[in-house]
Amino acid sequence: MLLKFQFLHFSTAFSPKFHKISAPVIRITKFRSQMGSSSYTTSSASSSKLLFRQLFEKDSSTYTYLLADASHPDKPALLVDPVDKTVDRDLSLVKELGLKLLYAINTHVHADHVTGTGLIKSKAPGVKSIISKASNAKADLFVEPGDKICFGDLFLEVRSTPGHTLGCVTYVTGDGHNQPQPRIAFTGDALLIRGCGRTDFQGGSSEQLYKSVHSQIFTLPKDTFVYPAHDYKGFSVSTVGEEMLYNPRLTKDKVIETLEISSDNIDSIFLPKSNFIFLNLCF
Amino acid sequence: MLLKFQFLHFSTAFSPKFHKISAPVIRITKFRSQMGSSSYTTSSASSSKLLFRQLFEKDSSTYTYLLADASHPDKPALLVDPVDKTVDRDLSLVKELGLKLLYAINTHVHADHVTGTGLIKSKAPGVKSIISKASNAKADLFVEPGDKICFGDLFLEVRSTPGHTLGCVTYVTGDGHNQPQPRIAFTGDALLIRGCGRTDFQGGSSEQLYKSVHSQIFTLPKDTFVYPAHDYKGFSVSTVGEEMLYNPRLTKDKVIETLEISSDNIDSIFLPKSNFIFLNLCF
Repeated sequence: MLLKFQFLHFSTAFSPKFHKISAPVIRITKFRSQMGSSSYTTSSASSSKLLFRQLFEKDSSTYTYLLADASHPDKPALLVDPVDKTVDRDLSLVKELGLKLLYAINTHVHADHVTGTGLIKSKAPGVKSIISKASNAKADLFVEPGDKICFGDLFLEVRSTPGHTLGCVTYVTGDGHNQPQPRIAFTGDALLIRGCGRTDFQGGSSEQLYKSVHSQIFTLPKDTFVYPAHDYKGFSVSTVGEEMLYNPRLTKDKVIETLEISSDNIDSIFLPKSNFIFLNLCF
Repeated sequence: MLLKFQFLHFSTAFSPKFHKISAPVIRITKFRSQMGSSSYTTSSASSSKLLFRQLFEKDSSTYTYLLADASHPDKPALLVDPVDKTVDRDLSLVKELGLKLLYAINTHVHADHVTGTGLIKSKAPGVKSIISKASNAKADLFVEPGDKICFGDLFLEVRSTPGHTLGCVTYVTGDGHNQPQPRIAFTGDALLIRGCGRTDFQGGSSEQLYKSVHSQIFTLPKDTFVYPAHDYKGFSVSTVGEEMLYNPRLTKDKVIETLEISSDNIDSIFLPKSNFIFLNLCF
């Protein structure tokens, strides 16, 4: 049996040029009005007001994140990448902590588990689902690069990071004196800890993912925390600086190469070709 | 078939009186000398220097914690409750982050997994293992209530929290202007998130565990983070205040009661006896 592998190698000649995203504050108006919050720009609170919880769904190794502005009277909150199986756990925690859940947001359309968004909306009427416009998925609200999702005096900035899917986005906490420091990036499947999401289906593209991570995530301050949608080795968090140094799939330069090899030699190719970046398996 | 169940109920009449632990700084001398650090009392650094990582071992649902003083030139570090299966992952992370691992410490002798301490010592000579004297286990160094384990200008305070085992301790980050705020408690199996460790073997005692948690953990500031040795539902962290409110096993008052019931009625007993605290199954 012959298997055809496509490797993307990266050479020093590759130097991607991308425009940095802008942040059209005007587009956040619709979110603000739904959460009963004053503008984030009026806040003078310190960064310590972020309530943050990382939650894990074991079967799909998925991380869900609960964020809230604990200093705001309403304690407005949002969930990033909720899983259907753990919706009751998540909503119970929201209730116990006295939070007002505003949004259930997804970094992308998930292929490895069912999003909890629909179930949350049925159990907690009033919660709005959010996903990127580019995902072509269903949701109450759609975001585009540069948008801000506000909860209390805190906000998440939307960055476009396609490659795992066409509509993948990374949500990054705000850059400002009243926002959490270091910043926090919820990278979905675009950037995992010492890895990245697969790129061989769902409109995936290894080259696009490489560009996304380098232009939209690796341009953040090095101490920015990286919180991915999955981890399979028990890591919970990393930083941009760490991933720039140690991510085996994203630290090399780019070259494209296609190999045809025997399935008997699958293991052996990993030794001489140690600088491969993404693997697309073509049957 | 008859099964004999022992319940510990807690009434308002129960009012445990325990001496608060003292902190004999003199006992930490031996630890200091091994890490090449000056005294923690000379530090004027802020609390932001703690490098902290939560790591998960999926099979036994165990959390391992990596802590380091990132502001110290040596970046001295310690691991709490390492698991043998994940030692290579943990040591690789230590190396990548440029840390100097000083100690591998255990909250107790683990019955549900093999500690990684021995393996760490063989792979990283110079690392010292630490466990409580009361555990009667093997280690390089033994700690007692009130001891401090220093790493750089940071330290962990040792609190005795028996009940899951006789030798269980909780490690709590220091109380001082240059220590992390809020404080962080590594509670082992004494206090889990919305639960606690089993008390039916290894010298366990439901009553003792209740006393330990109430006198040594629930007396900490309510915003103290609770990081347990295990979680089976995907929670990663809680706070003392949350557990005082919502922990179903530790929020009730204490009464001791022994019931003998038919195994056919095992489920039904949980309804009328909703205020049971710990369950010891006696065959």
